[in-house]
Order: sequence, then structure tokens, then C-alpha cells
Amino acid sequence: MSLGVIGYAGAMGRWQPDARGRLEQAALTLYGQHGFDNTTVAEIAERAGLTKRTFFRYFADKREVLFWGAQTLEQLFVQEVAEAPASAAPLDAVAAALDAVAPMFEERREFAVRRQQIIAANPELQERELIKLASLSRAVAEALRRRGVGDAAATLTAEAGITVFRVAFERWVDEGNQQPLQELMRESLDELRAVAAAR
Amino acid sequence: MSLGVIGYAGAMGRWQPDARGRLEQAALTLYGQHGFDNTTVAEIAERAGLTKRTFFRYFADKREVLFWGAQTLEQLFVQEVAEAPASAAPLDAVAAALDAVAPMFEERREFAVRRQQIIAANPELQERELIKLASLSRAVAEALRRRGVGDAAATLTAEAGITVFRVAFERWVDEGNQQPLQELMRESLDELRAVAAAR
Repeated sequence: MSLGVIGYAGAMGRWQPDARGRLEQAALTLYGQHGFDNTTVAEIAERAGLTKRTFFRYFADKREVLFWGAQTLEQLFVQEVAEAPASAAPLDAVAAALDAVAPMFEERREFAVRRQQIIAANPELQERELIKLASLSRAVAEALRRRGVGDAAATLTAEAGITVFRVAFERWVDEGNQQPLQELMRESLDELRAVAAAR
Repeated sequence: MSLGVIGYAGAMGRWQPDARGRLEQAALTLYGQHGFDNTTVAEIAERAGLTKRTFFRYFADKREVLFWGAQTLEQLFVQEVAEAPASAAPLDAVAAALDAVAPMFEERREFAVRRQQIIAANPELQERELIKLASLSRAVAEALRRRGVGDAAATLTAEAGITVFRVAFERWVDEGNQQPLQELMRESLDELRAVAAAR
């Protein structure tokens, strides 16, 4: 399974004339046309009508164009887990967070699909995505512990939630998909519950 | 959570005088004393009383000393999933595989503990472990699909199983732990089922 789920957490829409958005669009286009490895920061900046210096004000390197949203996603996820009703079971707190992050992706589906294709074509980017998702999972587990969930239960719940997210995301970016991400995440969560209950 | 669960799948005991085992022992000792980054292949070979050439007959690089067992583990895991009774639910097939791999680790607990400490001290090794575990999860999911399990359910079950494995492994290598790995894995699996059932 290729991953492509991190990096759309930005607040900005596609057509705003801001430098970050222009650099991002230029990078996505070039990565798609020539491959990630064959694209330079100079080429991205040129296509965006900006300088390399400007590029490095926004992104540490060309990989970060694809991953800068991970931190925002993590913060929102953690916040939603923290703010779930005290009575919510651990997995329900994670389900509430999944519901809350869905619109962030839905707003930028075309970006998500293109990004997914770029990542699927590059093992190094897949590894980076894996590491970002592991970091997200650890943050969610930590948020669950702060709710009083036991150590192991927190890790198990967080990992389950991230897997639900990944499975739903894969379906969502599929070309033939018509279902919203939120609905797909709810379906995946139900499927996880069914799998865990089956004996 | 630091990971340290791959790489003990070798058939060889600690005290056999074979070259692989001697290189492995020498590497573990040096990584522990001087750190992974500060140890060279030449130093490992010298300590083992062997040549660099011999080292490279067994390991592609110094990292592989810690990860060469991953493939054997994956093969056994996949085989056990495949051979679980046809009537077994997907998560029960994975539970059977967890039972089957436990002795392989139990035989080399001291090695596992030392390896865990080395990996915990090095982010690059932690990333490598994450990637190996993701590969293991994909292989288990594929084995479940061959049993007729649906695509998403296979991924969800495999990821749940690998998480159970990781959580139990963390407890098992803990200094104060007295419980066998198999027992800890069964406990973690029960905990996962409880987490998924709670509403």
C-alpha cells in the first residue's frame, strides 16, 4: 500500500497568489512531469516566478514541499482528541478527531491525488511518509494518555486510528472514488471494529 | 515508543563459533560501547577475529547486522498466517502467527535487549525498524488476502497484529519484565479487542 496522506493541512486554497502556494503548485507540477529526483529547487523557484532564496524561506528542502502540513495535521488531531467529551471511549475520541480532520483534506482533493502519485513513485518519499505517520501516531497516543488512557491501550488505539485513516485515504484518492473521506473513515473504523470482534 | 523487534530470527544460538554469530556479537558489543555511528566494519571484523571481506559475505553493511533476521521473521509470519485453520477469523490467524514467532525471540532475549538499546539510541536505526515493520505488515496483509480476507480488512488486521507485537515487545524487553513474550502478546491482543469494542 502506498501512502499519501500527509501534507494538505495548509489553510490556503489553490489559487491564492501567495508565494508558498505558488511554490507548492510549481513543485507538484515538476515532480509529476520529471520525477521528484530530477527536479531542482532552482527549477521550482523559476517556474513559480520566485527566487531560490524565497523557496528556502518557506521550505527547508524540496521534500518539505510535500510534508510541511504534517505538523498542522498533528496539532489538529491532538487537539481534537484532547477536546473529545470526557465520557468518550479512547477509540471514539480518535474517531472524533478523524471526523474533524476530514474537511482539511476534502478542500484539497486534487492536490492530495497528485501528491499521492508523486509519493507512490518514490520509495524515499514513502519512507518519509511512514515516519511522519509514526510521529502522528505517537502524538495521538500521548494525547490519549493525557486523557487517562493506559499506556498500551493508548498506543493500540492510536495505531488503530492511524491505520483507519490510511486505509480510508487510499480509497479516497482512488480515481473511481465518489465517497467523501469522512464517510470512508467511518466505514474503515466500523471494519476495524468488526475485525477485532470476529472470533 | 522506541522499536526493537526485528532481527532475531536467526536459527543460530549465541555461542556457536560461526562467522555470522561472531560478527554479530562483535558488532553488538561495539555499537553498545561506542555507538552505532562511531563503529566501523573494520573494527567489527577485527574484534571478531575475521576480515572485512568475510563481514561483507554475511552483511551488506553495518546496519544489516541488526536487520538481517527481518526476512526470516516475515517468512515465518506469513507461513503461519497461511497455515492457520480455514475457519480462523483473520485476527485469529494473526494471533496464531504471533504465538509461533514468540519462541524465536525468547531464545535470544539478551540479544534482543541489547539490540533494542542500540536502536533506541539512534534515529536512523529507528526509521529502518519502522520500514521493516511496515514491510512485515504488508506481507501479513497479503497473506490474509490470499486467505480470502477483503482488501481493507486485511490491511486493518495486519496493522493491528503488528501493533500488538510491538506493544508486547516493548514490555518484554523492559528491564523489570518477567513475563514471556507470548503471554504479553496475548494480553496486548486482548487489550486491542477491548479497545475496539468499547463505545
